[in-house]
Amino acid sequence: MHISTLDNFFDPSSVAVIGASNSTFNLGATICNTLKSSEKLKDRIYAVNKKAEDVNGCPGFASILDIPADIDLAIIIVAAKAVPGIVREIAEKGTRNIIIESAGFSEEGEDGARMQSDINETVRKHGIRVMGPNCLGVLNAQNRFCCFYGAQEHTFDLVYQRPGTVSYVIQSGGVGVLILESFATDIVSVNKMVSIGNKTDVDEADLIEYFKTDSTEVIGMFLENIQHGRRLIEAARNCGKPILIYKSGRTSEGARAAMSHTAGMANNDRVFDAACRQSGIIRLRSIAELHSMPKMFTSMPLLKGKNIVVITNSGAFGGIVADLLHEAGLSMARLKPETMDKLSKTGKLFNVSNPVDLGPAISPQAFHDIYEILLQADEVDGLLPIPSVWKDFIINTIEDLNQMCRTYNKPSATYTPNALWKTLNIRSTHKLPIFESPEEAVRALEISHFHYSSARKKDKSASYETISR
Amino acid sequence: MHISTLDNFFDPSSVAVIGASNSTFNLGATICNTLKSSEKLKDRIYAVNKKAEDVNGCPGFASILDIPADIDLAIIIVAAKAVPGIVREIAEKGTRNIIIESAGFSEEGEDGARMQSDINETVRKHGIRVMGPNCLGVLNAQNRFCCFYGAQEHTFDLVYQRPGTVSYVIQSGGVGVLILESFATDIVSVNKMVSIGNKTDVDEADLIEYFKTDSTEVIGMFLENIQHGRRLIEAARNCGKPILIYKSGRTSEGARAAMSHTAGMANNDRVFDAACRQSGIIRLRSIAELHSMPKMFTSMPLLKGKNIVVITNSGAFGGIVADLLHEAGLSMARLKPETMDKLSKTGKLFNVSNPVDLGPAISPQAFHDIYEILLQADEVDGLLPIPSVWKDFIINTIEDLNQMCRTYNKPSATYTPNALWKTLNIRSTHKLPIFESPEEAVRALEISHFHYSSARKKDKSASYETISR
Repeated sequence: MHISTLDNFFDPSSVAVIGASNSTFNLGATICNTLKSSEKLKDRIYAVNKKAEDVNGCPGFASILDIPADIDLAIIIVAAKAVPGIVREIAEKGTRNIIIESAGFSEEGEDGARMQSDINETVRKHGIRVMGPNCLGVLNAQNRFCCFYGAQEHTFDLVYQRPGTVSYVIQSGGVGVLILESFATDIVSVNKMVSIGNKTDVDEADLIEYFKTDSTEVIGMFLENIQHGRRLIEAARNCGKPILIYKSGRTSEGARAAMSHTAGMANNDRVFDAACRQSGIIRLRSIAELHSMPKMFTSMPLLKGKNIVVITNSGAFGGIVADLLHEAGLSMARLKPETMDKLSKTGKLFNVSNPVDLGPAISPQAFHDIYEILLQADEVDGLLPIPSVWKDFIINTIEDLNQMCRTYNKPSATYTPNALWKTLNIRSTHKLPIFESPEEAVRALEISHFHYSSARKKDKSASYETISR
Repeated sequence: MHISTLDNFFDPSSVAVIGASNSTFNLGATICNTLKSSEKLKDRIYAVNKKAEDVNGCPGFASILDIPADIDLAIIIVAAKAVPGIVREIAEKGTRNIIIESAGFSEEGEDGARMQSDINETVRKHGIRVMGPNCLGVLNAQNRFCCFYGAQEHTFDLVYQRPGTVSYVIQSGGVGVLILESFATDIVSVNKMVSIGNKTDVDEADLIEYFKTDSTEVIGMFLENIQHGRRLIEAARNCGKPILIYKSGRTSEGARAAMSHTAGMANNDRVFDAACRQSGIIRLRSIAELHSMPKMFTSMPLLKGKNIVVITNSGAFGGIVADLLHEAGLSMARLKPETMDKLSKTGKLFNVSNPVDLGPAISPQAFHDIYEILLQADEVDGLLPIPSVWKDFIINTIEDLNQMCRTYNKPSATYTPNALWKTLNIRSTHKLPIFESPEEAVRALEISHFHYSSARKKDKSASYETISR
C-alpha cells in the first residue's frame, strides 16, 4: 500500500472543510475565510455541513462524498464523536491527508482515547496521513496557505508579506501566535508553522524529515511531550539543519499540567537532555528563544571556536559579558601583541585588550578598522560588540560589521545596551540581527558553536553509530 | 571630629563645579547646565576654572576659596593629577562633601592609586565624605538634583516628571542610563541613583544606611566588586527594605574585565552568594532584573507561602509555568474540592484544577469571580495569571485583580503572552504591573517570597547573631 506524503498538508490543490457552516461562532467558517488568501485554492475550497449550505462563498455539500472534484486535503472541525465516521467517508473519497482540529480525544480521557484509536485504524488501512487531533494544522507563508481556526481576516498579512526560512512545530496555538507576533520587530520570519496537537500520526520526527528537504533553514519546536524519542533523535541526527526545541513538562508539576492540554505521557527529562546533546538538538531555555535565536543561524556564519572578543563603550558591560561567556563555556580571546598594536593605531581606544573599550571619541572608520582587525586575527573566533546607539552612524557600523562577518566567515552577536523599546525599534527599522540582552547575545554564540561542533561530530562518525541503541 | 552626613550629596544648597569652563567638550560645563534643573540651586551654582570665567550663566572663580558663599558640595572634574591639591583647597574652604568624577586613579595603576591615597588622607583628617573618584555622582528625582556629566538638556525630564521610590547604587553610568530608559515603559520609577565608581570612601553599605531612612521603598545595585563585605552584610541585615544586587566579576574572566573599569579586587563569588542568602540580599540573575523586579515590591503584597495558582487561556503556558514554579522552589497549589466547586459555577471554564484553564468564552464578571475565589482560598498564597490580551476588557480585569490583591493581602504576578512590543505598549499605557516573560513572572514571585522569609528570620533572630564572624 502507498502511504501518502506530507506535501498535501502544505500545498494542496483542493480542500474540504468539514464542519464549516453559517451558524454563529462557527470555527470552520473562519477556516474557509483564511484559506481564501491562497491564490491557488480560491475556487477549490468546499464546505461540508448537514444543510449542504455555502459558507463564505465556498460551495457547500452534505458529505465529502458529494463533492464533484478530487480533494487533496480534508480539514475536520466537528464534535469529536462524529469524527471517526467522517474519517471513514474521507477514506472512501480517496483523500489521503486529513487535519483533525476538533478537540475531545485522548487529552480528555478514555472515551476520547478510544475514538482516537478508531481513527488510527481507518487511516492506517488506507495509507492516510493525519495531523492532530486537537490542533490548528498548518500555516505556510510561502504560498499563503493557512487552516488555523479562529483567525480573523488579514491576521497573517504581515506574515505573508515577508515569508522567511524558519519552520516551526508547536503543540500550542498560543505559543505559535506569540512567535508570529514577535517577528514583527525581528529580522527573521516564518516559512511554515505546524500545530500538531495530540499527534496521533504525524509528529515532530516526520516534520523534521519534511523540513530537511524544503526551503527551511532553521527548525524551531515547542513540545509538551515526546512519544517516539528514538525516531526524533534519528531524524534530528540526519537533518543537518539547526533544530531548536523548547520542551515543557520537564518537572512532574509541568508534566501534569501539559497532560490535560495535549495528552502526552511524562518523559524523563534527563534522558531527553542527554539525547539532545548526542543528536545535536539545541535545547532552548525559554519560549522567547524560539523567536530570538534563529537569526543567529540565518544571518551569521557558525562559530567555529570558543574565543570571543568583546567590544564595548561601556566598561561595565565588558565585565558582565565576560562572566556570561565563561559561564556558557566560551572564552575571552587573549589578543596577541600584534593585534593590540594594530588596534591602538585606530584611534583613542580606552583599552586595547579584551574587552576592547572604545571610549566615547570614535569614528565610523575606526569602528570599521577595529572590527576588521579582530575578524582577521587568528586568535579570535567570534565577536560580541556592545555599542550603545547614541548616534545614527552606530547603526551603519553594525550593518558594516554584518557584511564583514560573511567575508571573514566568523560570526558576531551584537547587543545594544539600550532599553528594550529602543532596541526593538532599531531592529525592526534597520533589520539588523541585534539581541535584546547580554544573556541573549552570549546564548546565540553558545548555540552557534554547539551546532557547529555537533555537525562536525556527525561528519566524523557518519560511518558508525555513536548512540547506544 | 564631626564626620559629615550624606545629606549634602542629595540635597545641597550650593554647589561648586571645579573644572567647569568654556572650552570645547568641557564636561564640567554640562554639569553646570544639568544642575540648573534644580529650583533651589539655580543661583547657587559656581564654576571654578583657571580663567575665573562664568560658565552657562554660573559665576566663575579661579579657586573654591574665592567663592563668597558657603559651599555644601564640591564636584571635581579635572585631570587626575590636579585633584589632590584641589581636595586640600576644598578642605580649607570648609566644604564637607565632595564628588570626584575624574577618572585616572586606582583603576589605572599604581600612580593613580597613590593619588587616591593622598586624597583619602586629606578627607579623613577633616571628616569629609567623598564619592568616587571615577564616577557620575548623584541623581535625585525628588528635587531635580543631578550632577551626571555629559547629559544633554532635558535628558532627565521624564525622570523628574515621575519621581519614584526605587533607589540605585551603580558602578557604571551605562547601566544607570539603561535603567532610566527602561522605566519609560514600566510602572515604577527612580527615587535616587548614585554612581559610586572606585568608592574610595562612600560605598554601597553607606548608601543602604542612607536609603533606609529616606522615601526609598526598594534598593537596586549594580556592583563590580565589594571591598567591605561584612559592612555590606550588616547594613543589609539592618535595612528591612528589599535590596536587589546584580554583581559582575563572578568569574575570573569577569573579574579581570571589571578590574580595569572600577579597580576592585576579585571576590570569592560563593562567599558572596552565601552572604546574600544569610543577610536577605536578593541576588539578581540579569541586569534587566534591576528594572523589572522592583515593581513586584512597590505594587504587590509579599508572597507569604509557596502555593501558586496559575490562571490561563492558553493550555501550553500552564505547563510552561508549572515547570518554572517547580524549578524556582515554589509549588502549584492543590485546590480544595470546595474551591473547584466555586470555580466551576463561574462560567465555561475548560479546567477548574490548577492550572485553571479559562477557555475562550469568559466575561469580565467571571474573571473577577475567579480571581476573588482564588484569593480567598486558604490553600492559595499567590496568583500567576496568564491572560492573553485579545480584547480591551482583559486590561480592566488586570486592574481589578491588582485592587483585590491589596484587599486580600496576596500578590499576583501577571504575564500577558503577547509579543514584547505589545506588552511594553500595554504596560506603559495602562500602568499595570505586568511582566515580560513567564520566567520574569515566576522570578518575581520567587524573590517576593525570599524577601518575606528573610525578613521573618531576621525578626526571630533579632537578639542574637546568626552569621559567623
